[in-house]
Amino acid sequence: MRKTKLFNYHLIISIIGILLVINSMFMLFCLPFSLYYNEDNWVAITAAALINGIIGGGSFYYSQKKSPSKDLKKKDGYLIVTLGWIFISFFGGLPYLLSGDIPSLTDAFFETLSGYSTTGASVLTDIEAVGKGILLWRSLTQWIGGMGIIVLTVAILPILGIGGMQLFVAEAPGISPDKLQPRIKETAKRLWWVYLGLTFTEMILLMIGDMSFYDALNHALTTMATGGFSTKNSSAAAMSPFIQYVIIIFMFIAGTNFTLNYYLFKGRFKDILKNEEFKYYASIVGGSTLLLSCIVFFALSTEGGKDFWEVIYAEWGSSIVLLERAEKSFRDVLFQVISIITTTGYVSADYTGWTTFATMWIFVLMFIGGMAGSTAGGVKIVRHIILQKNSFLELKRQLHPSAIIPVRFNHMAVSQSITYNVLGFIIAYFLTYALGILVMAAMGLDLLTAMGSVATCLGNIGPGLGTVGPVDNFAHLPDGAKWFLSFMMLLGRLELTTVIIIFTPYFWKKV
Amino acid sequence: MRKTKLFNYHLIISIIGILLVINSMFMLFCLPFSLYYNEDNWVAITAAALINGIIGGGSFYYSQKKSPSKDLKKKDGYLIVTLGWIFISFFGGLPYLLSGDIPSLTDAFFETLSGYSTTGASVLTDIEAVGKGILLWRSLTQWIGGMGIIVLTVAILPILGIGGMQLFVAEAPGISPDKLQPRIKETAKRLWWVYLGLTFTEMILLMIGDMSFYDALNHALTTMATGGFSTKNSSAAAMSPFIQYVIIIFMFIAGTNFTLNYYLFKGRFKDILKNEEFKYYASIVGGSTLLLSCIVFFALSTEGGKDFWEVIYAEWGSSIVLLERAEKSFRDVLFQVISIITTTGYVSADYTGWTTFATMWIFVLMFIGGMAGSTAGGVKIVRHIILQKNSFLELKRQLHPSAIIPVRFNHMAVSQSITYNVLGFIIAYFLTYALGILVMAAMGLDLLTAMGSVATCLGNIGPGLGTVGPVDNFAHLPDGAKWFLSFMMLLGRLELTTVIIIFTPYFWKKV
Ligand SMILES: [K+]
Ligand SMILES: [K+]
Repeated sequence: MRKTKLFNYHLIISIIGILLVINSMFMLFCLPFSLYYNEDNWVAITAAALINGIIGGGSFYYSQKKSPSKDLKKKDGYLIVTLGWIFISFFGGLPYLLSGDIPSLTDAFFETLSGYSTTGASVLTDIEAVGKGILLWRSLTQWIGGMGIIVLTVAILPILGIGGMQLFVAEAPGISPDKLQPRIKETAKRLWWVYLGLTFTEMILLMIGDMSFYDALNHALTTMATGGFSTKNSSAAAMSPFIQYVIIIFMFIAGTNFTLNYYLFKGRFKDILKNEEFKYYASIVGGSTLLLSCIVFFALSTEGGKDFWEVIYAEWGSSIVLLERAEKSFRDVLFQVISIITTTGYVSADYTGWTTFATMWIFVLMFIGGMAGSTAGGVKIVRHIILQKNSFLELKRQLHPSAIIPVRFNHMAVSQSITYNVLGFIIAYFLTYALGILVMAAMGLDLLTAMGSVATCLGNIGPGLGTVGPVDNFAHLPDGAKWFLSFMMLLGRLELTTVIIIFTPYFWKKV
Repeated sequence: MRKTKLFNYHLIISIIGILLVINSMFMLFCLPFSLYYNEDNWVAITAAALINGIIGGGSFYYSQKKSPSKDLKKKDGYLIVTLGWIFISFFGGLPYLLSGDIPSLTDAFFETLSGYSTTGASVLTDIEAVGKGILLWRSLTQWIGGMGIIVLTVAILPILGIGGMQLFVAEAPGISPDKLQPRIKETAKRLWWVYLGLTFTEMILLMIGDMSFYDALNHALTTMATGGFSTKNSSAAAMSPFIQYVIIIFMFIAGTNFTLNYYLFKGRFKDILKNEEFKYYASIVGGSTLLLSCIVFFALSTEGGKDFWEVIYAEWGSSIVLLERAEKSFRDVLFQVISIITTTGYVSADYTGWTTFATMWIFVLMFIGGMAGSTAGGVKIVRHIILQKNSFLELKRQLHPSAIIPVRFNHMAVSQSITYNVLGFIIAYFLTYALGILVMAAMGLDLLTAMGSVATCLGNIGPGLGTVGPVDNFAHLPDGAKWFLSFMMLLGRLELTTVIIIFTPYFWKKV
């Protein structure tokens, strides 16, 4: 008789091995770019790919030889997801380390995890000085992370019982909640095709807007992942209005549930428009843009202490000036609103210069996040809807304590346990946030930077407030802060409990 | 047949009438002080007392003549509590307005509601210039508010079903949750005697510490209410260490469940020490004091950029200097920690000068609050315990979805609906907080002031951050901000839902 082990270690090692092999293959994809642009870093990229391939392949081969049972338990799931994300981030940092572009281990790990978690917070102070082969790898980490999130959401999180993700699954094409297993592979594949198709379409549109093939490829990869790594030091600020609008549209799409994007390809527009989460998503974007556009337009018109109505009156004759300013205000706001709510994190204008109120508004958007089932991070809109509806009903329940009044979402009653789970998630999110600020303050950071950096890393967004604002980077933070923020990115990306549960005693007890 | 009305209006008016008569009687209590100190304001006080008495008595008489049914419904309860608090704040502001000490209606309302809600945020820029009769009235508003809160917690909130207050009731002496009604009056009376006795004891101790009778009376009144209004411009900063320690002890007692304080009088110390919420309360105070004392001691020793160990080494010989500094650090920290966690809000040292980390720690304490069943505001410790235990168990439930694992508190299982209610309260608290910051930012306040003012008013604390820090006041805020913050004080004091529920459509529907 064999002893039963707490975890299926061999299978865990074998799957992490596969992840490293995938890493290796994507690194090799960067090689031709490195050679084409005549860069020295091809040696570093090849070496990194080899190390990933050999260690990954070796681990896989070793654990397969032990012929582990295929029986994957829930607990193995938590370990695979968390350890997998950590291991690929260590090994994915090799191109940076070996090429010397990011010589510190802390920085390389931060940058790579920032990639895989689709956060986009960067330690690079001069992005344009880094070789194109390496920058493509940087963009690819985000694209891989986005693919990973799609599998995670469709196939893994609902099984692990993570905060209300079952709600999304009921919506995925070809999946019924009671018969999940058999169709998962098919669904994941379908959504990957959508992801690939959208990336390709955006790239073509960016090239039509006169962007180079290389830049278009990079920005398409990091838009669809809601990642936000750019190959430009100024992010999207120097880009043409056309290109900015293309990015705006694709950020919006990337923040949409990929099942709805699949409907987009199929032309089922009605199904998109009647989705309740989508309605909220579009309304928040629309409402925020309207409100903040007015504020920015007003601020631009009164620059230098001028009187608003006098300016408008004086410019009434040359209405083109007014229109141009209105369009610029609208575009800047729309770009930043969508970039933040979808947790992409590209920057085309500095929102910290838009009055305290507008900055705070943007900051609040950081805690909303995109739709569930997209590549966006953050709390996600569906959870806010459940929260809002439940709070409202709770008041009704208080007046009529004996009545049973369930929350309804997309015309279905949401079970008590899912509602409970969602409330729990939201509280955990804000508690983690509060603790995070305390830790960052203990490391000597000022309040605004602490608030901004934790919010942006936990929400997988990218730009924050204070010294890590939209036109700054994370290079100057102490090493401890970088490791801690990396942990925040991991927590946020894996919906908190996947990681936290590993630290509880229950997890390590045999049952 | 009589038409059934939505509310029992006559009974509501009659009860509010009684509240105004009580107002009037307490105003008359200030009159001898005014006369003794030869102040002109006796006219204003008398006039205010007359107006309160006549309008209150008239309303009572009028509605009694209509002989309303004694049948008080739940909905009437919400209205009485909310409207009652608002009406006495308007009429309680008359002494300020008529004496001219606070000539603006906005300011007078703010100061009075700040009193009744035991918040202690003040618009007075020079407290010592105000007449003693008026200042005593100011202190009395807090003491009345504290009495009101005790009735509210024991008798009213549990019936209205407010966020987990049932948990406290099960603890109150002589109350069993299934047979609540008959003993409520008795319990409330008993706790009022405890309240009165503690106020008197503190006053005597302060006088032993060489404080004048007048100052001792005022500070005893505002300590036991966890109110924090002081008769001194510098609050407690200039007081002797003995007096500071007396205030520390009584703030701690005021933040303790009054049922436990009743045990204190009865000498049932074991019952106090085995109370779970009390253990948390003492631990948070102890832990915070230990941690922050070290930080403040270190900061004081290294003032002017000196090296810590060199200073310690140099002063080792004259150990009295070291000890004095250690005692001062300990006392300052203990005072501020207890003042903030009990939501009293006296100030003996400026915590905003204690490094970002220590300030943030104090700020976090603002969201903890004292024990349920005390006069303290804020979220309250019992709710944090339920939250913490439930979060931990939620992870266990995730691993074993079929198991039913209830939260246990004071060795009893907490029902699912109470847990749910507590989670809902905490979320509502933080949502209100976030919305509050946005509103304050929209009124043009800077981020720190917005964060601090909403936190301190919602938690009924007193001092905040930024321009409303511990050594500042609220006078400079725009009128809109003062009205909004008044609303926040009311929301916080009435446990949010008592007020919010009135704004829902359910409330105004006949059932
Ligand atoms: K991002
Ligand atoms: K207070």
